Amino acid sequence: MPHIALPEHLPGIRSAMAFRPETAKPLNELVEVLLHTTNNTLTPGERELIATYVSSLNECHYCQTIHGAIAAANLNDDYDLVKRVKADFQHADISSKLKSLLVIAAKVQKGGKNVKAEDIMAARAQGVTDTEIHDTVLIAAAFCMYNRYVDGLATTQPLDEAFYLERGKQVARDGYVAVSKTYLPAEPVAR
Amino acid sequence: MPHIALPEHLPGIRSAMAFRPETAKPLNELVEVLLHTTNNTLTPGERELIATYVSSLNECHYCQTIHGAIAAANLNDDYDLVKRVKADFQHADISSKLKSLLVIAAKVQKGGKNVKAEDIMAARAQGVTDTEIHDTVLIAAAFCMYNRYVDGLATTQPLDEAFYLERGKQVARDGYVAVSKTYLPAEPVAR
Repeated sequence: MPHIALPEHLPGIRSAMAFRPETAKPLNELVEVLLHTTNNTLTPGERELIATYVSSLNECHYCQTIHGAIAAANLNDDYDLVKRVKADFQHADISSKLKSLLVIAAKVQKGGKNVKAEDIMAARAQGVTDTEIHDTVLIAAAFCMYNRYVDGLATTQPLDEAFYLERGKQVARDGYVAVSKTYLPAEPVAR
Repeated sequence: MPHIALPEHLPGIRSAMAFRPETAKPLNELVEVLLHTTNNTLTPGERELIATYVSSLNECHYCQTIHGAIAAANLNDDYDLVKRVKADFQHADISSKLKSLLVIAAKVQKGGKNVKAEDIMAARAQGVTDTEIHDTVLIAAAFCMYNRYVDGLATTQPLDEAFYLERGKQVARDGYVAVSKTYLPAEPVAR
């Protein structure tokens, strides 16, 4: 049961966002820029895999399942690949470049100071750019926020995988800001 | 030295924000709503103390020092109180209500699932509302992001305390979004 009176018809972060639309707005805009916008040299599928992996390290059921579903929707519905990345990304069928970014993301998840110059050099050796390093660090950091938000309020998190797969296709297609309009008020009301 | 080519004239999170204005916008809007806006039953000083305390738990020098300075600016320049809260908040001269919220914030810092029903009940016994619980969880979660962002990129973090105290007064007065306009471009440029 959620720790506070969240809307009962909404799961996970959506219930918290509907409870507080004032903070939902920047939270949705941030994840939109980080994961959905296309003017980025990392594909949405790659960025969603980073978000999914960090959420699995933080053991957030809702976030790792919905972002895993969005990742899969961006990767020709290859949900098995998502599961292999979560279980052992070094042996998953992803690029060496993405592996070097997942190493950095895992360090950030433990704490920012864990990222060392040698992690950055290893990524650069795979052709990673400064902006890609920046975005990986911020995606990993942001999911340390989203995961704590979702679990810290004890939001309701459906167990039915089909629920996430369907929603994942919608978000992959339309993005976070557009989809949020289906459950958030048009204009946040001051409380 | 920063892990990527951040603007050298800017410290801490400001260098990362200037590097990537597209993400700076929602990051500034989020912290503005969480810490600076006045339509909140927690004072800016109380909310800045929560942010400062979480940043100290994450050992982020830049964030705990700047938010400590902003907190002090909101609390009649009582910088000693800020230091006592960081060192041992249970014996600091703050309300029992704020102490109950700092307990929750510390649990969130370790991971969202650490927040238990008894922590919530203890806070409610001090008159804490659902929105105050929500905001405390999200402030703590958000600073687990900001702290990792600042340290994960190895941003430059001045040691001179006077630098933070001066800046703290500006932010306390004008807010995050207004102050960010002094170092961010007017309109983010797609890269």
